[in-house]
Amino acid sequence: MKVLLVGDIVGKPGRNAFVQVVRQLKEDGRVDFVIANGENAAAGRGPAPDIANALLSGGADVVTLGDHAWDSKEMVAGIDMEDRIIRPANFSKGAPGRGWVRVDTPEGPLVVMQLICRVFMQPNYDCPFQMADRMLKGELGGDKVIFVDFHGEASSERMAMGRFLDGRVSAVFGTHTHCQTSDETVFPKGTAYITDLGMTGPKDSILGREVEPVLAKFLTGVPHKFDVAKGDPTLEGAIVDVDMKTGKASSIERIRISV
Amino acid sequence: MKVLLVGDIVGKPGRNAFVQVVRQLKEDGRVDFVIANGENAAAGRGPAPDIANALLSGGADVVTLGDHAWDSKEMVAGIDMEDRIIRPANFSKGAPGRGWVRVDTPEGPLVVMQLICRVFMQPNYDCPFQMADRMLKGELGGDKVIFVDFHGEASSERMAMGRFLDGRVSAVFGTHTHCQTSDETVFPKGTAYITDLGMTGPKDSILGREVEPVLAKFLTGVPHKFDVAKGDPTLEGAIVDVDMKTGKASSIERIRISV
Amino acid sequence: MKVLLVGDIVGKPGRNAFVQVVRQLKEDGRVDFVIANGENAAAGRGPAPDIANALLSGGADVVTLGDHAWDSKEMVAGIDMEDRIIRPANFSKGAPGRGWVRVDTPEGPLVVMQLICRVFMQPNYDCPFQMADRMLKGELGGDKVIFVDFHGEASSERMAMGRFLDGRVSAVFGTHTHCQTSDETVFPKGTAYITDLGMTGPKDSILGREVEPVLAKFLTGVPHKFDVAKGDPTLEGAIVDVDMKTGKASSIERIRISV
Amino acid sequence: MKVLLVGDIVGKPGRNAFVQVVRQLKEDGRVDFVIANGENAAAGRGPAPDIANALLSGGADVVTLGDHAWDSKEMVAGIDMEDRIIRPANFSKGAPGRGWVRVDTPEGPLVVMQLICRVFMQPNYDCPFQMADRMLKGELGGDKVIFVDFHGEASSERMAMGRFLDGRVSAVFGTHTHCQTSDETVFPKGTAYITDLGMTGPKDSILGREVEPVLAKFLTGVPHKFDVAKGDPTLEGAIVDVDMKTGKASSIERIRISV
Ligand SMILES: [Fe+2]
Ligand SMILES: [Fe+2]
Ligand SMILES: [Fe+2]
Ligand SMILES: [Fe+2]
Ligand SMILES: [Fe+2]
Ligand SMILES: [Fe+2]
Ligand SMILES: [Fe+2]
Ligand SMILES: [Fe+2]
Repeated sequence: MKVLLVGDIVGKPGRNAFVQVVRQLKEDGRVDFVIANGENAAAGRGPAPDIANALLSGGADVVTLGDHAWDSKEMVAGIDMEDRIIRPANFSKGAPGRGWVRVDTPEGPLVVMQLICRVFMQPNYDCPFQMADRMLKGELGGDKVIFVDFHGEASSERMAMGRFLDGRVSAVFGTHTHCQTSDETVFPKGTAYITDLGMTGPKDSILGREVEPVLAKFLTGVPHKFDVAKGDPTLEGAIVDVDMKTGKASSIERIRISV
Repeated sequence: MKVLLVGDIVGKPGRNAFVQVVRQLKEDGRVDFVIANGENAAAGRGPAPDIANALLSGGADVVTLGDHAWDSKEMVAGIDMEDRIIRPANFSKGAPGRGWVRVDTPEGPLVVMQLICRVFMQPNYDCPFQMADRMLKGELGGDKVIFVDFHGEASSERMAMGRFLDGRVSAVFGTHTHCQTSDETVFPKGTAYITDLGMTGPKDSILGREVEPVLAKFLTGVPHKFDVAKGDPTLEGAIVDVDMKTGKASSIERIRISV
Repeated sequence: MKVLLVGDIVGKPGRNAFVQVVRQLKEDGRVDFVIANGENAAAGRGPAPDIANALLSGGADVVTLGDHAWDSKEMVAGIDMEDRIIRPANFSKGAPGRGWVRVDTPEGPLVVMQLICRVFMQPNYDCPFQMADRMLKGELGGDKVIFVDFHGEASSERMAMGRFLDGRVSAVFGTHTHCQTSDETVFPKGTAYITDLGMTGPKDSILGREVEPVLAKFLTGVPHKFDVAKGDPTLEGAIVDVDMKTGKASSIERIRISV
Repeated sequence: MKVLLVGDIVGKPGRNAFVQVVRQLKEDGRVDFVIANGENAAAGRGPAPDIANALLSGGADVVTLGDHAWDSKEMVAGIDMEDRIIRPANFSKGAPGRGWVRVDTPEGPLVVMQLICRVFMQPNYDCPFQMADRMLKGELGGDKVIFVDFHGEASSERMAMGRFLDGRVSAVFGTHTHCQTSDETVFPKGTAYITDLGMTGPKDSILGREVEPVLAKFLTGVPHKFDVAKGDPTLEGAIVDVDMKTGKASSIERIRISV
């Protein structure tokens, strides 16, 4: 099965690019299943459920979030309504929502799990390594096909998770930095890996935002409104080919498609 | 001259406690000049100019700010209207406002300067040590009486500034943590020092905020509204006795006065 | 029972001050039980077991550690040899050592627990709030007299723990900043609290280190050797009077004793 | 002129790969000038001058450093001996060494400058944006061909510098994360850009280190010795084609060459 992994969708330009590119990829038979990071889908911030649901309607099978999960109060209240919108599994024990979902596909079950990094991130996440280990030995003990969105900043932590889970999951892919890495690979035991998928949104920008206010913030320290940019809407991500019997990935292909 | 240093004023309970206690201290002849940290004066956040001006009317001779300086857009636009509202001098070169003010008192000029720490703080401040050095050799080269609000988190950095400026300024006092330290002292060369003045606001709280939402945030990671608490409004700070001829401090006395 | 809580012991001057002051306090009948933070006992760094054991011989009943727990490889290898040397309970699951100890006293059992903060600290600690809750409902469910060393940086997190555990433990006291706070109090439900005990070591210093190298580091960014200072060795901490039947604290008294 | 930019060289495997690949690229006429990041050249840590000099002998025209600049005391003492070993220009004013060098080439002068990021980095660097601006208006006011190594963590800050300097320098390239990005581009006004060059060292690793100790550290929090790995030594970087008359870049090509 060909699984499309989509980097952080930013604002309306990102949502439009997402819908358009995914439709085309499906029509071309290049993609069977879509996992999309939606943590910046609402004007660059965390979406309310309606916007996340629009991504599901627009072609995503599962939407993952991230540190922006609770930007919208509606998401705090509503995330439990929809299984296919997930937030990091190692969020605090008391947080709403869930960290993984098992989706039935014509070729069998496929699990999507999200974890969040701790290095350079907020100080209230449980250990993603211990959490992954516990889940894989527990509730996911019978699953073969597992895709892990590891959301975070540091390359060391993300690479470490890729190595840690090699042979235990189908893919580990990073989100959050909005900057695609060129290190896509299939590790020796069959786990596809890439440090960061990149961003789905206006490339003529700084990580999806207008250039001038971001520069002004760096130069003055004074807050500026960071509007979502418009130019060159693009989908970035990767396509993983996974064997639904064994859960092994046979390939990972990095993509960047402008609309 | 007896100079009152007032720890971060939090919200309306803090502003009321400030006005009431300062009036009494002045009537009792215990205080001649008042320096107040106002970075949380507006419902726990950075004030607009009108609220900072109300502190000036209410007894402050100078209001200092901090990392919350630009919470209010009105302050960004309006800080340059009032010399006696200052923000850290080591803010980025392009920031509005100024980092020090020289006030005429009946006994001569008194300078108040603010600096901000870098350890555990936002990553866009210039070096406070180099900045202090440059100012003391430059525009403040002729001043004897200089009070330095060093706003920040780490005890090491604040203590280091106290030692660095010993003999060059009248006092170095910390603000920002809302937690008064017990280490007030006059250093060997005549500089009064305390790592943190504490907070002026409701003590029955977590740093001025209601207890329950702060606990809920720590337990769940989900954002909560942190309303300013109400119970036990208190002024915390210190009184420094300074020789206006030499600029040396002869004493520093820590205070905590409930209203 | 009168329990002495001792702030971070720094190097040889700190160890000497500790032994001398504790002997005197015991002779004077002011102290029955001693909990000492030893995370900087070895030349300002984490001790090997022999130095921690020397603190036990020198008057401590329990030694707590902190983020410096593993500075010495010998401690990694040896901590499991001695129950009364504890490290934070919310260290990673795979870490050696343990996070609490129950000590028999003539008046009954007394538990000492250590937790470590997450704000501004290393990114590999479990949630101290969830951990405390789990332990108090679990293995410590039958204990009345419990002392909690909450080791860390931010005043907000430490104050939050004090409020969180009010009525559930005898005392919550902070260590790590080497800077004593003046906010000692007994909370409404009987838990003694202080944000930071301060430091046991040479006060004529920056947090126990020689002044000049620390200033040079701040001014140049170039690493310098931070030798332990010598002047004015002092013990800082607090004495808590606890009812061994109920576990309630009746008083907390801040202390600072130079030798 | 074709300028090779080389990502962080890690340990002996990295140094060997560097020498071998550069020799071949020069023989093939693909490269005329070489800028190499050497901050991890000594067993994964900052090199002493002899190792940095060996990179110069081995094919580098300029060696840049980074946050690891002062790992070796010999570098602190010796950096001023060799102009072509540079450290970030926005290091503290009091630091040894210099932040840029102008090298004469057969086709005219070429400047290499290094800056270091502040987001998620140590808290003692001056503003890289203000520093770049000042230098380009000052000592480099007459230079056309300028290559900027912007060493750091956050994609936002690095992308912002690329946009900020577009048209003012020949190239802005990132180092430090050891993870090559796929976003190489020439900006509209002629500045080549890539967020991170990647690493020159053993790819069968976590950022150049053996996998197992890094995983053990993440799982337990206990320090482990991070030896440099051995497998699959590889050079990562980019080749920029620059017009020596105008300073404009006409292309940037990402490279990854195993030996
Ligand atoms: Fe994110
Ligand atoms: Fe994002
Ligand atoms: Fe504050
Ligand atoms: Fe502040
Ligand atoms: Fe300590
Ligand atoms: Fe500590
Ligand atoms: Fe680096
Ligand atoms: Fe590096």
